[in-house]
Amino acid sequence: MHILRNLLIGSPLPTGDTKETRLSKVQALAAFSPDALSSIAYANQEIFLALVAAGSAGLSMSFPIGVAITALLVLVALSYYQTIQAYPSGGGSYIVARTNLGKTAGLTAASALLVGYTLTAAVSLTAGVAAIASSFPILWNYQTELALFFLGVITLINLRGARETGTLMGFPVYFFLASFLGMLVFGFITSFITRSTLPGTALLSPTRPLTAIITLQAFAAGCTALTGIEAISNGVPAFKTPEVKNAGKTLLVMALLMAILFIGSIGLTQYLRIIPQGQETILSALARRILGSNMLYVIVQVSSMLILVVAANTSYSGFPRLAAILARDQFLPNQFIQLGDRLVYSNGIFLLASATALLIILFGGDSHALVPLFAVGVFLAFTLSQAGMVIHWQRAKGHHWPLKLAINAFGAAATGVATLIIAISRFTEGAWISLLVIPLLVLGFLRIEDHYKTTARQIALKGNAKSAVRSAATSSDMRVIVPVSGVHRGVAEALQVAYLLTSRVKAAYVEIDPDQTEALVRQWAKKLDGVPLEVIPSPYRSLISPLLDFLDFEDASNRDGQLAAVLLPDLVPAKWWHYLLHNNSARLIKNALLHRRRHQGYQRVIIDVPFHLSD
Amino acid sequence: MHILRNLLIGSPLPTGDTKETRLSKVQALAAFSPDALSSIAYANQEIFLALVAAGSAGLSMSFPIGVAITALLVLVALSYYQTIQAYPSGGGSYIVARTNLGKTAGLTAASALLVGYTLTAAVSLTAGVAAIASSFPILWNYQTELALFFLGVITLINLRGARETGTLMGFPVYFFLASFLGMLVFGFITSFITRSTLPGTALLSPTRPLTAIITLQAFAAGCTALTGIEAISNGVPAFKTPEVKNAGKTLLVMALLMAILFIGSIGLTQYLRIIPQGQETILSALARRILGSNMLYVIVQVSSMLILVVAANTSYSGFPRLAAILARDQFLPNQFIQLGDRLVYSNGIFLLASATALLIILFGGDSHALVPLFAVGVFLAFTLSQAGMVIHWQRAKGHHWPLKLAINAFGAAATGVATLIIAISRFTEGAWISLLVIPLLVLGFLRIEDHYKTTARQIALKGNAKSAVRSAATSSDMRVIVPVSGVHRGVAEALQVAYLLTSRVKAAYVEIDPDQTEALVRQWAKKLDGVPLEVIPSPYRSLISPLLDFLDFEDASNRDGQLAAVLLPDLVPAKWWHYLLHNNSARLIKNALLHRRRHQGYQRVIIDVPFHLSD
Repeated sequence: MHILRNLLIGSPLPTGDTKETRLSKVQALAAFSPDALSSIAYANQEIFLALVAAGSAGLSMSFPIGVAITALLVLVALSYYQTIQAYPSGGGSYIVARTNLGKTAGLTAASALLVGYTLTAAVSLTAGVAAIASSFPILWNYQTELALFFLGVITLINLRGARETGTLMGFPVYFFLASFLGMLVFGFITSFITRSTLPGTALLSPTRPLTAIITLQAFAAGCTALTGIEAISNGVPAFKTPEVKNAGKTLLVMALLMAILFIGSIGLTQYLRIIPQGQETILSALARRILGSNMLYVIVQVSSMLILVVAANTSYSGFPRLAAILARDQFLPNQFIQLGDRLVYSNGIFLLASATALLIILFGGDSHALVPLFAVGVFLAFTLSQAGMVIHWQRAKGHHWPLKLAINAFGAAATGVATLIIAISRFTEGAWISLLVIPLLVLGFLRIEDHYKTTARQIALKGNAKSAVRSAATSSDMRVIVPVSGVHRGVAEALQVAYLLTSRVKAAYVEIDPDQTEALVRQWAKKLDGVPLEVIPSPYRSLISPLLDFLDFEDASNRDGQLAAVLLPDLVPAKWWHYLLHNNSARLIKNALLHRRRHQGYQRVIIDVPFHLSD
Repeated sequence: MHILRNLLIGSPLPTGDTKETRLSKVQALAAFSPDALSSIAYANQEIFLALVAAGSAGLSMSFPIGVAITALLVLVALSYYQTIQAYPSGGGSYIVARTNLGKTAGLTAASALLVGYTLTAAVSLTAGVAAIASSFPILWNYQTELALFFLGVITLINLRGARETGTLMGFPVYFFLASFLGMLVFGFITSFITRSTLPGTALLSPTRPLTAIITLQAFAAGCTALTGIEAISNGVPAFKTPEVKNAGKTLLVMALLMAILFIGSIGLTQYLRIIPQGQETILSALARRILGSNMLYVIVQVSSMLILVVAANTSYSGFPRLAAILARDQFLPNQFIQLGDRLVYSNGIFLLASATALLIILFGGDSHALVPLFAVGVFLAFTLSQAGMVIHWQRAKGHHWPLKLAINAFGAAATGVATLIIAISRFTEGAWISLLVIPLLVLGFLRIEDHYKTTARQIALKGNAKSAVRSAATSSDMRVIVPVSGVHRGVAEALQVAYLLTSRVKAAYVEIDPDQTEALVRQWAKKLDGVPLEVIPSPYRSLISPLLDFLDFEDASNRDGQLAAVLLPDLVPAKWWHYLLHNNSARLIKNALLHRRRHQGYQRVIIDVPFHLSD
């Protein structure tokens, strides 16, 4: 086990090794942009699928919709540019919303983000599989398996730790930018040259009329293009100094690239009247039309797949870090704060990987089925974050604050409207799941916080405990009860320990099979004569409840205020499968005692005397 | 939970309620014969399926094969009649083989029986579903689900206890005998009347030639007709006095009924040249031909289904009882001896139900796929039991013993040859699975016995332990180490208990996050001043191994021969889900200590001081 773990994940790192390596702008673009850049893949696909039912008339709406989404993108980018200025130590939506709008808004943003991170991973991986399956159609049969395989690879890489992940990102991002932008440029040039010889694509006849609903659904679906745009604002401290300036510039470059990729591909798709033949993504059909079914086409598809897989990685930095922040604020179990062997938040990584795997399996590895769940959470977080920024400017004021406030307010309003459009138009397709899960998570956070607060109150030490502790002195006259199952060495050793502690020792035998009692009592008299033995009847053959009743009875008849202990002879087998061959009564009794509340004021101490069996 | 359990299974019964109700011959026939009588259903089906490939020529072999199997049946019945005389207290194959042939043979028989019981349940249930699905073809789509449903019902009935099961059996058995025998008689009469008007059934052309292999395979498949014949010999003590005489008579009546049902149905099937149309069992096709597709036909099918389901019940009396006997002989975990709430061997019932469910699921609820695994185990047990009887007569002698020996020897030889035929001719179809599992089970039995013997040796108390135990006196100068996670009431109460036991108390804090140590030490000095506190560094952030190293270090520096204990402050949450919110370090430490062998001769006692959190 250990060897395998070290091979896959690497040997443990000492705590002292935690130090940040700052990123240059080029590195930071690679680290923060994969999710944002790659989201054009599924956004395009979803717009196409939403409009195709309305035929050629429907598809002619894709460019206008693309323009509207790009406008939204510019607005959101500007909004987050301001967040970077205002929260140079990292302004995740949770922090911005919580600081400015209060706990519930903050937790709603956090919950929306956690859901969003999980869906980003699931959608990116399944869209990545779709990209490569468009080139090699046989792979469509293994959608789920491939997506889970990529998920496993990323999970392992992330469990190995941050340093390794950083270096792996650069290649896919710049490879994708080069191949995809190159293809778009080539496509534009050839389109304009061959404009006259454009093959007269047959008009696609609609199966339903183009309605406002369909247009809104296409807009809602396309909004997924914006996912990932907030990543840089969370990670400002990772930039080289001057952090704020560098982060801001990188954000603007990223947004520009997103806009070019999105509007360029959607424009060309409409201009060339691309319609996929058979099972194929719309971007694959576009690339095939521009480049032909050759090696160049395969390269573009591979680069799409790679950036989508790497995009899933964004979730692996965001989710565990947010979970740790929430745990530190006592909204999630404190296990999420622990750094694993490789100084990463292993528990957060495990949770994300499990939830993503579950989504992939439940939705059969189909990104189109997952997308309706997706955008609503992301846009909810956008909206809360922008709204928080509005309050921030109102409070903080500063240079040009009314203008900044206006930009964020406009952003909040636009993303808020988009959230509503997404929630309503895609409600029945899956948005309801996110709308159900997000508030449930918030309720969960609040209950967890409540538990931690209650616990802290209960275990708080008021005043100095020293005197109480030490005054106990060493003058115990404690009572010890030793449950026994027979006459053997384990029992003898346990009794020996009991008599070391006190002279008030009593053995207790629960009589499950009355036929065996006589032999036991005879044995006892022969080998352990003098040690008091109580035989407890058990007409219903159960072990625990007659024993507990006996303990209560003993407490009631010895109201001496002394410590009462149960001392258990515990045979410990040498191999795991040997446990199956024993009744494990010691374990059952321990569990029962541990969960038994104090009775008549007696605190029950449990003493375990292990007797190790050799093989 | 409790209410649901009481509703389904009934409230617990006190141990005193164990008493046997003796069965009359009529009741006993109902109790012991369902498996034997119902096995004609799948035996007929398997003979037909084995021969149909060889066309009409093949099918014309079914009657001769049926006669051969009936002859074997008579022989085996006579053999078991003798077992009843020789082992009036119940002569299961395990006991007969073990007593006369030794441990390995006994365990082989036991293992073959356990496999056989499981397969009886699986095959009977799936064949029962096939019987009813032949009438209502839509049910073919739910073969597995229906078989599992029936399995669940029988399991519940058996968990309720023996009294209830006994009364339920009579109806299906006599209902089946009446309806099926009635149909056969009616069939014979009408066949002889309408002999001249017999529709000229087209000859079925063969897909392969009729070879000796096919004939042997058909014979092997048909041998499943004998399964269940041994049931009465296991249960002699359940009969009213004179037990032996009554059991013997009942066995002969049962064997006669088996022979009539088997030879009658197979003869009519061949005479009427029955070939099922579509998905239908051969017996269903026979019934449909004789009676027409009417209510009478449905009644016959329902009665077949009922007796098959009840036949599965035979396994529920045999399997748990044999498991308990094996456990008493230390070949199976002693949990199988425990009587459950309702005075039945619940653990054996659970194991049988799980194994049967697994078989049904793995083989898709198809009895035809299960049968090849089946006969080999049953016939192996027959053979070992008969062989054991040969030795028995040789030793015991008595009235006419050479004749009795000859009968059993002939029976052993015949079933032995049948075992070989079955094992070889159906090896690749599934018999290999049984032939693999049976010896593996025997190996498992022997390893379990070995473990119990080794354990008994290790824990045996030699001589009188009294002096050693009492001389310990109450003069302990024990050392107690208290692992702490912070400064709180749980820790304070634990320290208080520690000082009650000894003055040599030391608290130990494992420093997982060095940033928190300073605050802890300050708190400690303020609230628990005077209690020694060790801060144990943990560069790799693990809790257990630095703590264990510290304990070893303490032992090494205190070679005082005194008792060493670890005392754990244990916060016990009020609700199960609260456990997820705590690190459960006390549980982890307890587990690690329990499995740690003695170090440098120090026995490590574990003391648990629970601190109960309220909600």
